[in-house]
Amino acid sequence: MYKCSLERMSDKIRTFAKYGDAGHGGITRYSLSPEANMARAEFKKRMEAIGAKVECDDVACMYATIEGSDPNAKRIVMGSHCDSVKNGGNYDGILGVMTGMEVLETVVKENIPHKHPLTAMIWTNEEGSLYPPAMMVSGIICNDYLPPELAKNFKYENMMKSKPMDESEFANFGEALAASPYKGDKANRISPDKYCAMFEAHLEQGPILEDNGNEVGAVQLVMGMFNYRVRFHGFTAHAGTFPMAKRHDALYAAAAFLCEMHKRFDELNEGQDPEFVYTTGEIYVHPGIHTCINDEAEFSLDVRHPDPELRQKVMDILKEMAAEEWCKCTCDIEEQWVRDTVYFDKNLVGFVEESMEEMGVKWQKILSGAGHDAQFCAYMIPTTMLFARTKAGLSHCEDERVSDEDCTTVATATLNAVLKADKFYD
Amino acid sequence: MYKCSLERMSDKIRTFAKYGDAGHGGITRYSLSPEANMARAEFKKRMEAIGAKVECDDVACMYATIEGSDPNAKRIVMGSHCDSVKNGGNYDGILGVMTGMEVLETVVKENIPHKHPLTAMIWTNEEGSLYPPAMMVSGIICNDYLPPELAKNFKYENMMKSKPMDESEFANFGEALAASPYKGDKANRISPDKYCAMFEAHLEQGPILEDNGNEVGAVQLVMGMFNYRVRFHGFTAHAGTFPMAKRHDALYAAAAFLCEMHKRFDELNEGQDPEFVYTTGEIYVHPGIHTCINDEAEFSLDVRHPDPELRQKVMDILKEMAAEEWCKCTCDIEEQWVRDTVYFDKNLVGFVEESMEEMGVKWQKILSGAGHDAQFCAYMIPTTMLFARTKAGLSHCEDERVSDEDCTTVATATLNAVLKADKFYD
Repeated sequence: MYKCSLERMSDKIRTFAKYGDAGHGGITRYSLSPEANMARAEFKKRMEAIGAKVECDDVACMYATIEGSDPNAKRIVMGSHCDSVKNGGNYDGILGVMTGMEVLETVVKENIPHKHPLTAMIWTNEEGSLYPPAMMVSGIICNDYLPPELAKNFKYENMMKSKPMDESEFANFGEALAASPYKGDKANRISPDKYCAMFEAHLEQGPILEDNGNEVGAVQLVMGMFNYRVRFHGFTAHAGTFPMAKRHDALYAAAAFLCEMHKRFDELNEGQDPEFVYTTGEIYVHPGIHTCINDEAEFSLDVRHPDPELRQKVMDILKEMAAEEWCKCTCDIEEQWVRDTVYFDKNLVGFVEESMEEMGVKWQKILSGAGHDAQFCAYMIPTTMLFARTKAGLSHCEDERVSDEDCTTVATATLNAVLKADKFYD
Repeated sequence: MYKCSLERMSDKIRTFAKYGDAGHGGITRYSLSPEANMARAEFKKRMEAIGAKVECDDVACMYATIEGSDPNAKRIVMGSHCDSVKNGGNYDGILGVMTGMEVLETVVKENIPHKHPLTAMIWTNEEGSLYPPAMMVSGIICNDYLPPELAKNFKYENMMKSKPMDESEFANFGEALAASPYKGDKANRISPDKYCAMFEAHLEQGPILEDNGNEVGAVQLVMGMFNYRVRFHGFTAHAGTFPMAKRHDALYAAAAFLCEMHKRFDELNEGQDPEFVYTTGEIYVHPGIHTCINDEAEFSLDVRHPDPELRQKVMDILKEMAAEEWCKCTCDIEEQWVRDTVYFDKNLVGFVEESMEEMGVKWQKILSGAGHDAQFCAYMIPTTMLFARTKAGLSHCEDERVSDEDCTTVATATLNAVLKADKFYD
């Protein structure tokens, strides 16, 4: 049982929190921004300080590698991202990067024997906050291995044209990439030829570990999901001149649908399975003027659950409801995307669970409701994830918190799981 | 009984429809735009052709006047606006301008005796579509006569700074006005010193006349109204990681409130009084991302009814509901504005009703749910309005339609009411 250093981990947490510090507890650190470059420079400096070789690929992913005893063995990689959402926190992404760094530092400092080269990695542009979509670069790198309906959304040429969603000195992602000091060779990309396993440590971003009194979680899968647009069509008229009885108010229809949808979905989920989640995050109305009745209303619906049968039942309810009339308005629904559940590699999940058990920490099996680079990487090479307890389940906000102790615990669990994988793979 | 000319009215309708023609049945004719200037030039040309004297005031309102037999009598004015909303129709505003023109043309052509000078008028910037707010210039001109809580929203200095909401060559309303060829002298403004009565003909913008099989309506009042923002506060979390049972979803709260509000308001309005209308035209959510639960949701609420007691009861329900918890979210409400019911001048309303009755047309008493320049003018001089039947109640859209016959009928009713006022006033 090897252990990572709380002191070293704390120092990394405090240091990386400076790069993009928004002045009130969190950061804004868009991918390829000057702030992200500061974090990347820190990564490079610290990794070179322990003798790691730092390489970059053509989409600016960074790889810091220490050799193992077998010059022919494939690399085991620990990676996540260093970019954040706007006004995000100090853990989402960077925790997995710091974990990789901490594992390498521990291995070097404690001279831990290992056969495989070990790599700490930064995935570029996971959030997609400045240049959408999210998980852009893992979508590019793993493209040949993704199901076709996913792969088509992450074609290299299209991704290069992605326009900034906020202020930027570059017209698109391709230009930002061309100007990046961390753009390297395509030959350096993570691939099945050179890598045998990928671990991603992340904060949970939900309240389940905390509610159960557990410090860390062994992630089993990333839940399947579907995303729809639900639209209502009425007609517009003047707020002051058109009698209530004759109105076909699209926003009223959307509100009535939304309430009834909660009722029917919750009836389906009688047992209150906490893994079944659905969210209406966006809403749009037309004409959207306070003196007009809306003729159009539209909301997004995001539904997640590991079981495809339950997701199908939810979709059946949705289709049934869309065929009904809502406050004299018609309804139609349009699929935006559907993703299957991604199961993580059984061997790697087992190594993570054994490590947590041997460490004597409070842990549990857990599912991921959020998407991560590991989810795409899992189509390409054996992959798994570890979660750290998140204060109040808050994430993608400046109040995002993981204790230094829990960060160190997830790093230690990663280290020991990596050492098990090191023994397992040729 | 004098009658206006269907042929002349039809010609005006076709002609004015060209100025701002958007190419698919309607117009975009912002106030003080080149398109509005074409309409103003047409007005000037036609009015001068019948011997009217055309004057402009300092806020570009235009007045075309033919003298009466008494050189000391005050003017009787018929006016409305020639500006439209974006992609509006060929009747809103311009119908009242064409009515004034048609009345003057008929009086001149038929040599109808009258004591008072008669004026056809264009009010500047009623819609406020390019430079808000709506009814800007009547708000400026009638400012000294408005209740203080209304007057403060239309101060001359502030109005001049109004910034364009769409493309414009001018930085604000003041600059557009300074550049207008129709800017004249402040002394020419409509005022109680020089004017004894104002008539505004308008399309109904609702379906009531059509549903009742009536051609025209004698408007009694402009309904009082209040406008609120209704806000919900929950907290945000990730769509994939946060269990349903722990969510405080502000959009869900807004939807539940909206549905319950319809229920309680409709219970209050048991008798289905068609004059009671309420509208939720705008909705806003934060963060408004499909992968996030919303922590904030807000909608606008516009409530109209002539009776202040009923409006108070509605407000009481609203306050009662705001004090409750909605889907674990808190609610607060904020008043945007409150306007009392404006009753039109009893004598003038009577003249309109007598005229319609004498004409043998199908008419009714009607209320205005929409705001008009006449509503502000009524605080300053005796004022009333006439409504023309609107196809399907559609307005502020390119499908806005009034038959040429109904346009002519409302002009004839105006003519005869004006002649009654001409006899009534010294």
